[in-house]
Amino acid sequence: MFIQPLPSQPSQSEISGEECWQLLAGQKVGRLATSVAGEPEIFPVSFAVADHRVYLRTKPGTKLAEITISPRVAFEVDEVGEDSAWSVVLKGRARALRSESEIDEARGTGLVSYLEDGKSEWICIAASEISGRRLVPGEA
Amino acid sequence: MFIQPLPSQPSQSEISGEECWQLLAGQKVGRLATSVAGEPEIFPVSFAVADHRVYLRTKPGTKLAEITISPRVAFEVDEVGEDSAWSVVLKGRARALRSESEIDEARGTGLVSYLEDGKSEWICIAASEISGRRLVPGEA
Repeated sequence: MFIQPLPSQPSQSEISGEECWQLLAGQKVGRLATSVAGEPEIFPVSFAVADHRVYLRTKPGTKLAEITISPRVAFEVDEVGEDSAWSVVLKGRARALRSESEIDEARGTGLVSYLEDGKSEWICIAASEISGRRLVPGEA
Repeated sequence: MFIQPLPSQPSQSEISGEECWQLLAGQKVGRLATSVAGEPEIFPVSFAVADHRVYLRTKPGTKLAEITISPRVAFEVDEVGEDSAWSVVLKGRARALRSESEIDEARGTGLVSYLEDGKSEWICIAASEISGRRLVPGEA
């Protein structure tokens, strides 16, 4: 029997919640979106994952440190290659960590920021939802 | 004379507006942040640049197509390597293109989306500000 190769079709598929967390844990840099008074902001950030939470660090006094004003955030991580790509988007609430025990827990992630320049504030994002898509490009 | 190697220090520097546009033009995928009713959203998107405008495509009926409700957006592109990284963030207003002449102009960018799956709507972002940072990691 002669098997005709299938034409390559563009496709996308959902990624399960558990696999989303695994993909996040394998990356170091993501992008955090916030909204203050209807104005979206976006920050590239180094991050770590533990217990289904995302941890970041920032400098005191930065816009990111003021996240307590508008704690709703979206966080995105992706990997785009020639043959396939994936993207994971998480939504949730961010808060600055204040108690020593929480900060110790956060330090336990071993997070090293890309730029180690005095980022002494820890931020934790608790997810309310997480979703992911895997894309395979092809001929339309 | 014996020259002592300088210890590697983490550093960051601003990128000029013109160089920000050049860096954008060299990339294919960015992330768009929107805010609807105080809720931030983030979308990875294929894009093209022409005349200091960013062009995207999306499917009719998607959240992204509803951008006319809350046109203020932030758009980010980055490249993170072992030895250096840069990030460019643009803020501005997005709108769906409606006139044939504008859509023709947009088509002229030659934008091919990563996933060609019926993205028939064109969106154009006019920037009100653009800024970029270059980071060199090092010992803190």
